[in-house]
Parts: sequence; structure tokens; C-alpha cells
Amino acid sequence: MAEILRAPKGLDGVAVADTTIAKSDTDGTLIYRGYAIKDLFEKSTFEESTYLILYGRLPTKGELEEFEAKLRRYSMVPHNVYDIVRAIPNEAHQMDVLRTAVSGLGATEGGISSEEQELSIIAQMPALVANCYRLNQGMEPAEPDASLSLCANYLYMLTGKKPSSFEAWTFERMLILYLEHDLNASAFTVRVVASTLADIYSACTAGLAALKGPLHGGANEAAMQMLLKIGSAGNARSYVQETLAKREKIMGFGHRIYKTVDPRSQLAKKLLKELLEKQGKGLESYKLCEAVENAVWEFKRLPSNVDFYAAPIFMTLGIPIETFTPIFASSRTVGWVAHYNEQLMDNRIYRPDAIYIGNKGLNYVPLDER
Amino acid sequence: MAEILRAPKGLDGVAVADTTIAKSDTDGTLIYRGYAIKDLFEKSTFEESTYLILYGRLPTKGELEEFEAKLRRYSMVPHNVYDIVRAIPNEAHQMDVLRTAVSGLGATEGGISSEEQELSIIAQMPALVANCYRLNQGMEPAEPDASLSLCANYLYMLTGKKPSSFEAWTFERMLILYLEHDLNASAFTVRVVASTLADIYSACTAGLAALKGPLHGGANEAAMQMLLKIGSAGNARSYVQETLAKREKIMGFGHRIYKTVDPRSQLAKKLLKELLEKQGKGLESYKLCEAVENAVWEFKRLPSNVDFYAAPIFMTLGIPIETFTPIFASSRTVGWVAHYNEQLMDNRIYRPDAIYIGNKGLNYVPLDER
Repeated sequence: MAEILRAPKGLDGVAVADTTIAKSDTDGTLIYRGYAIKDLFEKSTFEESTYLILYGRLPTKGELEEFEAKLRRYSMVPHNVYDIVRAIPNEAHQMDVLRTAVSGLGATEGGISSEEQELSIIAQMPALVANCYRLNQGMEPAEPDASLSLCANYLYMLTGKKPSSFEAWTFERMLILYLEHDLNASAFTVRVVASTLADIYSACTAGLAALKGPLHGGANEAAMQMLLKIGSAGNARSYVQETLAKREKIMGFGHRIYKTVDPRSQLAKKLLKELLEKQGKGLESYKLCEAVENAVWEFKRLPSNVDFYAAPIFMTLGIPIETFTPIFASSRTVGWVAHYNEQLMDNRIYRPDAIYIGNKGLNYVPLDER
Repeated sequence: MAEILRAPKGLDGVAVADTTIAKSDTDGTLIYRGYAIKDLFEKSTFEESTYLILYGRLPTKGELEEFEAKLRRYSMVPHNVYDIVRAIPNEAHQMDVLRTAVSGLGATEGGISSEEQELSIIAQMPALVANCYRLNQGMEPAEPDASLSLCANYLYMLTGKKPSSFEAWTFERMLILYLEHDLNASAFTVRVVASTLADIYSACTAGLAALKGPLHGGANEAAMQMLLKIGSAGNARSYVQETLAKREKIMGFGHRIYKTVDPRSQLAKKLLKELLEKQGKGLESYKLCEAVENAVWEFKRLPSNVDFYAAPIFMTLGIPIETFTPIFASSRTVGWVAHYNEQLMDNRIYRPDAIYIGNKGLNYVPLDER
């Protein structure tokens, strides 16, 4: 029998695959398919970056137009999926509702081709996220506005208000930041499920299951709740100090890869300031975030992560807090699809070992003699 | 930066955890919590083996009675879950339907305690499996018969006919064989999801997603389809020879751990013969299976696995083929719950590495200049 290799807990530092999709690095850099996140954030669109992540290169003008047309064509959610959502109680967690909707979409769309499945799951996520929330609140599903771009329409369905072009642009920047982040727990879950040759809906349902966990995708909602609790910049330092003294976590800080700076957080921080300046309603929430950030660095030497600045941006855009993690999921679905396909290009089913440290050779004693 | 360790594909031979739940070995042995599968198969009950796997030891009489009462108490599926199932088209794959139902159950039961969640997911799986199928076929959910045992009731809901006590006993043996099988792809998926601190419903939904894959749980259905196609023992040798010559797979053979014998397969084989003898309708299907088994060993030196003999047993019991993989899943849920809890006892979030072999430092060229 071959030697068993014992891996570090959580597979920390263990490379399970080769990848060409993305690379986050301890020096505070992140690339998608070779392009710096800063360039894509400043210059690209959601659709273009999605194309890049799925197909490995930037599209030509013709390719991009065709791709955008496909996303529009596949964006209609089958009606029965909303009937599934209607059957879920209103007090349900939005990530549970979205996971059930995506699983139900898979049960519905089993017959279509796999490329169509992959693009339609990406194309339908905005309507699914917005309408799971709307149905949960007793509203009817939003009618998409065909005159709007994908991201403007998404924001419109979430808030019920036509966004300004700067608001839509801001929302799109956040979606670009959330598209992909190499092998975290949800992307790894997607790859393990893919390795059994299960379909993309099964894999994305499992990705959503993993992303729900408070150690993973739940952080942007939790960060917002914390910011609301602190209230203003003046309370930040004492809140941080007291929370750390109780050995509790400050939400939206620290990252397994980025030890000094999360590049997405710094881009989002600048974006929050611009958004608030455009709105002309003052910089209170920006100052609050900065004060918390400075205090956490002072006391704990942890940098803010992307979720920390995503929260007040979504809040400022008028988006309901319950949808913050689902929005993250809708964008990250693009990365999951890329990981799914990359896994299948060089597949072997995941079947790790475990070291058995339990009992052996026990004799079964009949119930009456126990 | 720490050294990156490159793992074999599929984490083959890499131990990711310590476990005390089960151990399958290359010598053809399998233990649950230290007890040989043969003893449990011959002497235990589904409820007792479930208790053993969940709590690590055999129950006393009082503990078992209390446990059985809890399983009965938690066995009623909330009605809205069937409304979710009703909203899924009839042509859907039963594993897609079951995955959506379990996810929807999680969205419904979010408020109950975690021990109640764990026992109720196990207790509700029989009704979920049977009634997903029944609703899919245009029938109403089956009413459980309170006078029957858990397994007899399960078989009754699946077939619509009151089983004989030997039929119920046979079905229970198969459920015991399927309860747990250490770190395969679905149990590993469950542990990765657990590591994010997501709830048990999220983890089991992800387990179902992985089990759907044809490289994993789909084998018992596929084996049955193959046996139906071969038809009789006389055709077996030429079918196997021709199929292998085309480099196609013979379903229900081979196993990552068991290279010469799968202990569950041998127990199931004996059980099939007993069942057929009891029914007095001849041993044709047994002879067919044995002829296929002998031919695969002759040409390929692969042993049959548990799925190979599970298929004709389920068929003989009058169970619909579409539910074969869901039945496997319903029993394996017990193992998944044990893995979920074991993961949380010594948790670190799974975040493996990947070796980035893609492009770096690419310059973003504006769309018009591409």
C-alpha cells in the first residue's frame, strides 16, 4: 500500500490543482487571467470581465456583442422557479432561498446543453437574487427593463428605483471585484462536486451552500450590521478596542492570503468616497469605516478586506442588507463556472484519505446484554 | 512565504483529517465505529446502526427507544416542502428534485436547534425520497403507516404495497450497508461546507450535489439499466467482453479502496439469493449477476461493488429505478451528519492552494484597439 501523506488542516499550503483563472498573492495583488484587478476595475465592464474569466482572454468587439446578446437571451428565469421560491416561508435566510432556487433551476433546466446551462445560470443570477428577496417581502418578481444594461437592471430590480449612471457604474465595479478569487472554500467545493461529473447546477448549488457559512461569504452582511451598531467615527476606536479585548472578531478584517492589504478593499474604499461625494450627503459613513480600519490596524495589524467596504457601498446604493451575500454569490458564480470547467479539463474524482484513530475489532453485543 | 506542497490529483493518498467514524480497507474490510460491517448487517437495525454512527457507540435499550421515538417525532416533512417539489417539472432527475427538497427544508427549518436539525433531516429522508418520486409521477404524498417500523414504512411509501417482514428486513440490510463509507467525494464535500460553519442542511444539500455525479452515486441505477440490457446469464460473458473491447465501463465494478473484494457486495449477493428463494420465482437475476461478475473478474480482475447487487435487490423489492440513487443518499445522510460534526470538533476552513500557471502582467488594451 502506498504511503499516506498527512496534509495540514484546511489543506493550508497544499496545491490541489494547476490553475490559469486567477491569482491572489500575499503582496496584495490579484489578477484575473493575467490582468491586474485595478485595470479591470477602472476600465472593464461586468460582461467583458465575465468573458475574460470564462474564456481566458479579452473579447473582440464582435465577440463581446455576441456574448452580451447571449446573456440577455438566457436571462429569463423559468416561471416555476418562482413558484419554488413562493413555497418557502418568508422568514427564511436569503442564502437558503437562493440555494434552493438555483437547485430548482437545475431540476428544471436539466435538458438544455451544457454551454447554455453555464451562461444561463450566470445570466439568471441577478433576477434570482432580486426576486428571491422581493417574493420573500411579499412583492411580485421585478420586470426587467430592457433599456438598461445588465448591471443597471440588476440594481434596479434590487432597489425598485432607476439608478443614475454613476450608481450603476459603482455597482458594476463591486461586481467586478467579486467575480473570482481562486481556491477558497466555495470554489473548492465546486471543484470537488465537478470531479464526480455532476452538472453545473449541482456544483453551483454546492458553492452557494459553502458561501453561506459565516467564515466565508457572510462577512459583508456582518460588517454592515457592525457598522450600523458602531454608528459614527467617534465610537470606532473604543468599539474596536473593547471588542478585541473580549476576543471577539471585527467583521470584514483579515484574510488568509492578504496580510497587509487587500487590493479590492482599497479600490472599494476610494469608490465609496466618490459615491458619497457624488450624492452630496456627506462623508460620515466613509469616516466611520476609515476610523474602524485605522483602529483595527492599530490594535491588531489586520487589513480590511473587500467585504468591509462593499457593505457601506451597497447600503448607500439603497440595496437591502439581506441580499449582500447573495449579490456576492451572483458575481462569484462566474468564477465557479470557470473552476468547474478547469476541473473537468484534467479531472480525477476527489477521494482524500483520513487517518482512522477510532476503535477496531469490537464485538457486537446483543441489545439485551448491554 | 511557506513552501507549497503539491498534492496528487484527487487528493489520492492524502489524509485531510483524523476520523473515528468508519474505515474501509484494501483487504476488503469495512468497520463502522469499530464494528465489522458483517456483524451489523447480520444483527443490527437501521436505527441502532444510525445511533452507532452518530454517537460513536451502541445504545442501551433505553437510549435506543428514546432515539427511535425522536426519529418518529421528527419524521413529518413540513407541507411547504412538497409545494416546492410540486413546482418542479415532472421530467426532472430525482436527485435534482431531492437536492432541491432538502435545500428547501433547510430554508424552512432554519429556526430549530441544531440537534433537532440533524435528526430531522435523517428522519425525513425516507418520506422525502418516496414523495419526491410520487409527486413527480402525479401521485399524492404517501401517508406513513404508524404501525410499521421505519424501514418497512420507507419501503411501503416507495412501492405502495405493505412489505412482508422479510422484504422489510432485506431493505433494512441494504440501508445499513449504505450508511457510511469514510471520505468519498460526497462526505468530503460535506466536510468542506461544514468548515465554513454553514448549517447541516447546506452541507447535506452539497453532499447530494456531489452524490448525483455518475462517477459517484449514480452507479446503482446504471448497474440496473445494464442488467436489464444484458437480460440473461447466457448473454453476460459476450456482453462484458464486447463492452471492455470498446473500452467502455461495466457499471457496478471496481472501487478506489477495494481491489479484490467489496465486503458489502458479498453480503448483498447472499441477500439477493435469499430474497429470490423466499419469493420462489426463480434465481434468474441472481445467475445473471453472477455471470456478469465472473466475466468481469475473468477479463478485467475487478470485483463487483455494493451498487451492483443493490440494484437487483431494489428491483426485486418492487422499488422504482429512479429512486435507487436517492435511497443511497437517504441512508448516507447519516454518515454525512457524522462527518459534519467530526469536522466541527477540530475545524479549520478548507482553503487549499493552486499552482498558478497562467498569464501574468498583461496590459489591458481598450476594446476599440483590440
